[in-house]
Amino acid sequence: MRDAYQDQLDELAESLAAMCTQVASAMEKATRALLEADLQLAEEVISEDALVDDTRAAAEENAFALLALQAPVATDLRIVVSAIHGAGDIERMGDLALHVAQAARRRHPQPVLPAEVAPYFSEMGRVGVALAIKAGEVIRTRDLARANELETDDDAMDDLHKHMFSVLMDRDWAHGVGPAVDITLLARFYERYADHAVAVARRIVYVVTGQMPGPLTV
Amino acid sequence: MRDAYQDQLDELAESLAAMCTQVASAMEKATRALLEADLQLAEEVISEDALVDDTRAAAEENAFALLALQAPVATDLRIVVSAIHGAGDIERMGDLALHVAQAARRRHPQPVLPAEVAPYFSEMGRVGVALAIKAGEVIRTRDLARANELETDDDAMDDLHKHMFSVLMDRDWAHGVGPAVDITLLARFYERYADHAVAVARRIVYVVTGQMPGPLTV
Repeated sequence: MRDAYQDQLDELAESLAAMCTQVASAMEKATRALLEADLQLAEEVISEDALVDDTRAAAEENAFALLALQAPVATDLRIVVSAIHGAGDIERMGDLALHVAQAARRRHPQPVLPAEVAPYFSEMGRVGVALAIKAGEVIRTRDLARANELETDDDAMDDLHKHMFSVLMDRDWAHGVGPAVDITLLARFYERYADHAVAVARRIVYVVTGQMPGPLTV
Repeated sequence: MRDAYQDQLDELAESLAAMCTQVASAMEKATRALLEADLQLAEEVISEDALVDDTRAAAEENAFALLALQAPVATDLRIVVSAIHGAGDIERMGDLALHVAQAARRRHPQPVLPAEVAPYFSEMGRVGVALAIKAGEVIRTRDLARANELETDDDAMDDLHKHMFSVLMDRDWAHGVGPAVDITLLARFYERYADHAVAVARRIVYVVTGQMPGPLTV
């Protein structure tokens, strides 16, 4: 019985790690759709988001069943509670990738981004995808050093995010209000995506240490 | 023993309902700070956000203790799991009110909003605060009809949010990119605030019925 229980805990963690892979792929494709005005890729991200939602619902049901049937305590209980939180964070990452894809679709066949800001979004996409992949690794390995790395990696996203605003607010901005509004929201989506990846890693720190790291500044 | 346990469950729900009151007050004050360029009020919201975070941390600890010591099942387990989710949602509402206050502080003594858009934010504030208060009532009463009302109330926020974008994108927009960027983010904060209030109410539907309502479109 104990073995089946451990298997269930492992499966719960594995389903969350798999969600990280799903939303990393979604953000990778959404960013490409955005940069290349690729409608088909945008549609792919939009239709695949339901899979993330399904995985989240299944993970929550499994967590609930574990609580009801196994009444876990201590570390095991922290694993289940953190999985409940983590599933929510990762589903939200999927939603944010979806929003990026929707922006690409909304403006198609026009590109959303003026050429001069595209490189920043390419970089925000790269950082975001790397954070999602690393969050999945942290879920699998519970490696605290790796978990802490996400905080630093997220600083790069925050810098890109801040920099985008200075570009928009610059007198030389020549693209008017419409693109500025799109870019404001898109930059926010990437920044929030990264914050949720950090939150997932922080919950793993809590699983291992029993302590939540200090508050994430958002 | 059973009575102490029921008291703990009631206290958990009560602490969440109290958080709703806190974040309703925060958003009411943040909106006033925004509309009246009131720096002192903005500072008040900013410093009080720590109280919401503390209430959330205490609620999570109580939920964890209930799971570990009482091993609740069925409706009681749904109450605890929903409280874990709800505490996260309501804390986030506090963060969003904080962001509104920070915007008011950042531009002070300048107003953030051109006079013609101020009425929309006044209305978004009113709708948001009413949603937070209603979410608190739903937590206390578990009234499903009232819970469902939040979905309709949120439609008003979505309409205001969409309308703000059409104002920004209009050819007649005379305030340039800077205010448009501020307004884009602020409108998003109100819209997300409302979404989290709806999510809280939906979790109460789940507590009562055992079924989550269909996915919230965000």
